[in-house]
Amino acid sequence: MNVTLEQAQRILQAAQKKAAAIDTKMNICVVDSGSNLVAFARMDGAWIGSVDIAHKKARTAAWFTMDTKVMGPLVQPGASLYNIEHSNGGLITFPGGVVLKQGDEVIGAVGVSGSTVEDDHAVAEAGAAAMG
Amino acid sequence: MNVTLEQAQRILQAAQKKAAAIDTKMNICVVDSGSNLVAFARMDGAWIGSVDIAHKKARTAAWFTMDTKVMGPLVQPGASLYNIEHSNGGLITFPGGVVLKQGDEVIGAVGVSGSTVEDDHAVAEAGAAAMG
Amino acid sequence: MNVTLEQAQRILQAAQKKAAAIDTKMNICVVDSGSNLVAFARMDGAWIGSVDIAHKKARTAAWFTMDTKVMGPLVQPGASLYNIEHSNGGLITFPGGVVLKQGDEVIGAVGVSGSTVEDDHAVAEAGAAAMG
Amino acid sequence: MNVTLEQAQRILQAAQKKAAAIDTKMNICVVDSGSNLVAFARMDGAWIGSVDIAHKKARTAAWFTMDTKVMGPLVQPGASLYNIEHSNGGLITFPGGVVLKQGDEVIGAVGVSGSTVEDDHAVAEAGAAAMG
Repeated sequence: MNVTLEQAQRILQAAQKKAAAIDTKMNICVVDSGSNLVAFARMDGAWIGSVDIAHKKARTAAWFTMDTKVMGPLVQPGASLYNIEHSNGGLITFPGGVVLKQGDEVIGAVGVSGSTVEDDHAVAEAGAAAMG
Repeated sequence: MNVTLEQAQRILQAAQKKAAAIDTKMNICVVDSGSNLVAFARMDGAWIGSVDIAHKKARTAAWFTMDTKVMGPLVQPGASLYNIEHSNGGLITFPGGVVLKQGDEVIGAVGVSGSTVEDDHAVAEAGAAAMG
Repeated sequence: MNVTLEQAQRILQAAQKKAAAIDTKMNICVVDSGSNLVAFARMDGAWIGSVDIAHKKARTAAWFTMDTKVMGPLVQPGASLYNIEHSNGGLITFPGGVVLKQGDEVIGAVGVSGSTVEDDHAVAEAGAAAMG
Repeated sequence: MNVTLEQAQRILQAAQKKAAAIDTKMNICVVDSGSNLVAFARMDGAWIGSVDIAHKKARTAAWFTMDTKVMGPLVQPGASLYNIEHSNGGLITFPGGVVLKQGDEVIGAVGVSGSTVEDDHAVAEAGAAAMG
């Protein structure tokens, strides 16, 4: 089961609204359960370098069916998944990637990049909550 | 000068409407004048393999400030630009990438993939015409 | 708005002059606001491995509209952007990438590599100051 | 033995002069005998997609110590080097890459992209002739 385009567009809209409310400019990316791109929006003036980061956050979350912020502690020097970012053409393991769930099933993920990781995560959460 | 997100979203909507009208399922991608991603939509059931093709069509059109269908004849065996597709991490040189113009200036491009190249081009044109 | 070739060439010349003054051999790279290459010079005897580093420093600064030295503390183990370098085909997050500004707008960036990061940054600053 | 930065800059200047004389906007790239970047210039308004093509033409010429136009016939369907472009991260085998020679020795190459392949080659030749 996969997030639909209609759901993805609701996510993008809610995320943009939240981003504007906290005075940030974000890249927002939605992928399906196979980590394939469904929808994307770069707000005017958002960092170009965050296009790829938003995408990689979404893909990382969907590939491992967990929010990217969960992975952060596991990838530090000495930790069990140290340097896992070298796989899959590049992962991003800091906050801003959030899984999308239908019941217990992960049906995709949203990734956000453009501000602090706390802001990024908050905007991704706001988007995910609006999936419907 | 670059296409705005608002313009890009109008393009995505018009392209989806056209795609539905001709009974196709499309991937639609908008990039700015620097070939950086602005907005994207994959219609439910559209080919996943067309995600990258739509993106590369848009990037190819923006990189060379011409519709991708113009390049097709030039890249055939024996023609002057044969195998140019090996540059820039991969080009797509068949129809479906259309430049976005403000007056004479190229401010971005839209790329569409998911059906025949004629359909793809028609949907990209419909999108571009709605930029506003 | 983008840095022009004439401005880029002034940057390259000033950077080379500074590099010679402090007895170093540098790779110097100028990109536009979309992180696309505008001009480049490798001084005779400069490290070949620094060609790509100068390029990535310039791209990183332009992609995120900030000097690369600002990013260093944020990408350390345990810090919020740890391993962000895996995005965008590779970032460089130590000093030597400096944004180019016209008023408040970032119109490109210069990246320098070939000596200590302090020297690299000083040469990049000298280049940026000569943009005109 | 390698082309020097001073020689490369003479090449860039002569190539730009020729490009202007025939009313074109070019990307011009000089590499050394090891196919490593020495100097580069993108004329204002030149295609961004030609940045990589100019680079790949120069690298292709230096890697095989022959002008890229020599390779064109050899890479066609059925010919002996068909699809050699898949090697080395991408080759360009149409005109516009010209070797730089000191006596009989190839000391680098210049690659030009931005117009027809005939124009590209003419500008590369004009650059090479000014190496000194």
